[in-house]
Amino acid sequence: MFSLDSQLERDTVSVAALPLCELLLMNDSNYPWLILVPRQASIHELIDLSDHDQRQYQLESNMISRLLQSQFKADKLNIAALGNVVSQLHIHHIARFYNDQAWPKPVWGVLPPLPYAAAELTEALTLILSGLNSQTLVAFDWQQG
Amino acid sequence: MFSLDSQLERDTVSVAALPLCELLLMNDSNYPWLILVPRQASIHELIDLSDHDQRQYQLESNMISRLLQSQFKADKLNIAALGNVVSQLHIHHIARFYNDQAWPKPVWGVLPPLPYAAAELTEALTLILSGLNSQTLVAFDWQQG
Repeated sequence: MFSLDSQLERDTVSVAALPLCELLLMNDSNYPWLILVPRQASIHELIDLSDHDQRQYQLESNMISRLLQSQFKADKLNIAALGNVVSQLHIHHIARFYNDQAWPKPVWGVLPPLPYAAAELTEALTLILSGLNSQTLVAFDWQQG
Repeated sequence: MFSLDSQLERDTVSVAALPLCELLLMNDSNYPWLILVPRQASIHELIDLSDHDQRQYQLESNMISRLLQSQFKADKLNIAALGNVVSQLHIHHIARFYNDQAWPKPVWGVLPPLPYAAAELTEALTLILSGLNSQTLVAFDWQQG
């Protein structure tokens, strides 16, 4: 039975339950940083997902990627399934900017996490949820196609 | 028209042409480190691939992932599409080990690249090509299914 890893729970804010994945926001205001966690127990690698679930993952990953481009005006997306510390399968989707403080390095280990202030968090969640709402129907149409 | 980015060309050894992607081996013997580069011009993000090509990419990524598990006995896979320095879409597939020198950090920026000696390179390429051959038919069957 799936339960969210305790470190992921501590480090993130829950945003939405997508058909396959929990959508989390990393509580680090240095970057718009979303994480997809398939609701599957004892899964560590993308290849541990069934073919069907891989397609659904790709659909949700695409949705989140477009959202980071449209709502946050990302210059570049960084998408990564690492899991060296938290082994529960989770896939990072990070909006990068040419002027962010870690650019062009990958974000891990560069800056200490900077938790959101309440107003910033509200603003980020509003952007994410409105981006999500504008895309949900497209995703469902594609599933039916 | 597709041509491989010059930095990718310098940093890697060409292994095979898969149906969608060039398969490259990073010339860094610290880790078994494969890179998939879709043969598409002016592509920077996974979402720039068509639906069809995303499925084909997933198939090739799965093949490479299984290869890193079976031939190199990886403890963990690290899969990442970053592209902050080289913007041509390329997806890292890295076999990680609990006792590799960067563990548990992501590999980028931790150790300077350690180019393969000739005998090591031959050994690595032999492992990769035999792993690839043992999986190719499975991939083609799945495409027809």
